[in-house]
Amino acid sequence: MSLSEFELIQRYFAEASTDASVALGIGDDCAVLSVPTGQQLAVSIDSLVQGTHFLEGTPADLLASRLFGSALSDLAAMGATPAWLTLALTLPEPDEDWLQLFSSRLAQLCNEYHVSLVGGDTTKGPLTLSAQVHGFLPRDHRLTRAGAKVGDLICVSGCLGDSRGGLDGLLNGFENHTEAGYLLERFYAPTPRIELGKILLGKANSCIDISDGLLSDLSHILKASGGLGARLQLEAVPISSQLIATFGEESARQWALTGGEDFELCFTLPPNYLALLSQLPVPVAVIGKVTDRADIELFLRGEPCQIQGSGYDHFQRKDD
Amino acid sequence: MSLSEFELIQRYFAEASTDASVALGIGDDCAVLSVPTGQQLAVSIDSLVQGTHFLEGTPADLLASRLFGSALSDLAAMGATPAWLTLALTLPEPDEDWLQLFSSRLAQLCNEYHVSLVGGDTTKGPLTLSAQVHGFLPRDHRLTRAGAKVGDLICVSGCLGDSRGGLDGLLNGFENHTEAGYLLERFYAPTPRIELGKILLGKANSCIDISDGLLSDLSHILKASGGLGARLQLEAVPISSQLIATFGEESARQWALTGGEDFELCFTLPPNYLALLSQLPVPVAVIGKVTDRADIELFLRGEPCQIQGSGYDHFQRKDD
Repeated sequence: MSLSEFELIQRYFAEASTDASVALGIGDDCAVLSVPTGQQLAVSIDSLVQGTHFLEGTPADLLASRLFGSALSDLAAMGATPAWLTLALTLPEPDEDWLQLFSSRLAQLCNEYHVSLVGGDTTKGPLTLSAQVHGFLPRDHRLTRAGAKVGDLICVSGCLGDSRGGLDGLLNGFENHTEAGYLLERFYAPTPRIELGKILLGKANSCIDISDGLLSDLSHILKASGGLGARLQLEAVPISSQLIATFGEESARQWALTGGEDFELCFTLPPNYLALLSQLPVPVAVIGKVTDRADIELFLRGEPCQIQGSGYDHFQRKDD
Repeated sequence: MSLSEFELIQRYFAEASTDASVALGIGDDCAVLSVPTGQQLAVSIDSLVQGTHFLEGTPADLLASRLFGSALSDLAAMGATPAWLTLALTLPEPDEDWLQLFSSRLAQLCNEYHVSLVGGDTTKGPLTLSAQVHGFLPRDHRLTRAGAKVGDLICVSGCLGDSRGGLDGLLNGFENHTEAGYLLERFYAPTPRIELGKILLGKANSCIDISDGLLSDLSHILKASGGLGARLQLEAVPISSQLIATFGEESARQWALTGGEDFELCFTLPPNYLALLSQLPVPVAVIGKVTDRADIELFLRGEPCQIQGSGYDHFQRKDD
């Protein structure tokens, strides 16, 4: 660990480091941590790479919110309660202004979500940010991709496609600038659906966060659940008025299905939990049902339909 | 997570994934893990970056051993028992041959050290490898940098400077090729001193692994222990005959003090544990004593002396 850079980062984390589960935080060869009795640990590691996930010159505070939101979203998808964060930062140069902007935004988010930054490494090289998140789960309780059952309601939180709209605007310009701020915020500062995930724990049969695109991520659930299928009503897929106003209905609908990186939750719920949907901390739409045909069938106002492409893959992106 | 690449990696880890502490391994949004009752978790994250830590074209199996050895060394320095590994791999292209070579060497090492690969992320970009290691520690027992006491013996394991000799040979050629294989092995496949760290737990007052260079890492101990000092006998610093034969005594001695990345342990031991030193699984040399003067004093055969430079720092490397 290059301590000088991390000492700088640590300055912004004085408050967060008082968590009782952190026996030893940043500054030694390892952090030493305690998982509460009766809890298991959920962990996930993710990277953001300049040129792949964001453009050169992206302000450091936006990278912090993008990294934090996308990383914590994996905890939300398991129903876990966030606890600790570690960072591996590769930077072209040691830039104190960059570190200050990055750390200060990250510290805000850590405080908001009760997350302690417990360790890290800074190295020299092309700008790459990796984060590992750690959360707690009651022993033998977790949301996974693997439990969907025939007849489950297929649900999604929030609105889909906004993040892709924000990215498209960044790359190609916004056709209509009125809603650019909203769409960029959805791209740069995704909201990890932590509270929703915790409520779904023990109720939803399966869950995933939408990182690759709705159709692609839903297919991960269906495959992991033993080769099931789905019938989707496309008019029920939630799309923001801002996205439609900016890019038109056709692009909006396409991106809602395949855009990716919205970091909303897609989950399947036994029909007897239908009443739960009105009591959740975030709007949730029922968009279809799980079937026993190993295929995703799409319907628009009752008519079968098809769409192009199925999602987002880093290594295939240039062929999109 | 780009699953297709990680599914490939996972093929090599079938055996390791049966560990009872792993409730859910690779393939979902998070891994779900159990820390044994009465144990705490030690974690550390490290990155290797092409052009900073290794040269373009380095074979993937050597990168695996370099990453694994250096990452586990942080657990050794805490006295922790290795348990789990997560990986964030950024690769220019999805290269199955590269992944196969990398994964197969990594799986060998994971089996040897009883480590389970539990999660990862693969992304597209300049070659960067980040690893987080996780180990167990008996509750409230750990080796840290902060406990050195005046009068402690300063000890180091193995031989120092070999890794820097290997790197120098890679960059500038070997003056004498006879021992090139040994020195390259010490650079590419450092041995994490796990068993030594476990024995020292509860006995050594402080410990660190030598990543920046002996003088630099010892100064981390002295600073963390409240501003103590040290007297070192340079002739006691262990140097391999291979390093001397290849680069001469002057370079060998310099690199033993400042070279870095040997991943041997430097620790301070109360003098009453002197007898322990003959019973350890790796040769350990006593090279000096902790003093109350906030300075490192160097002696060569009884005479005070000085050396240039104090260690290794990524961001200052170009000025070396």
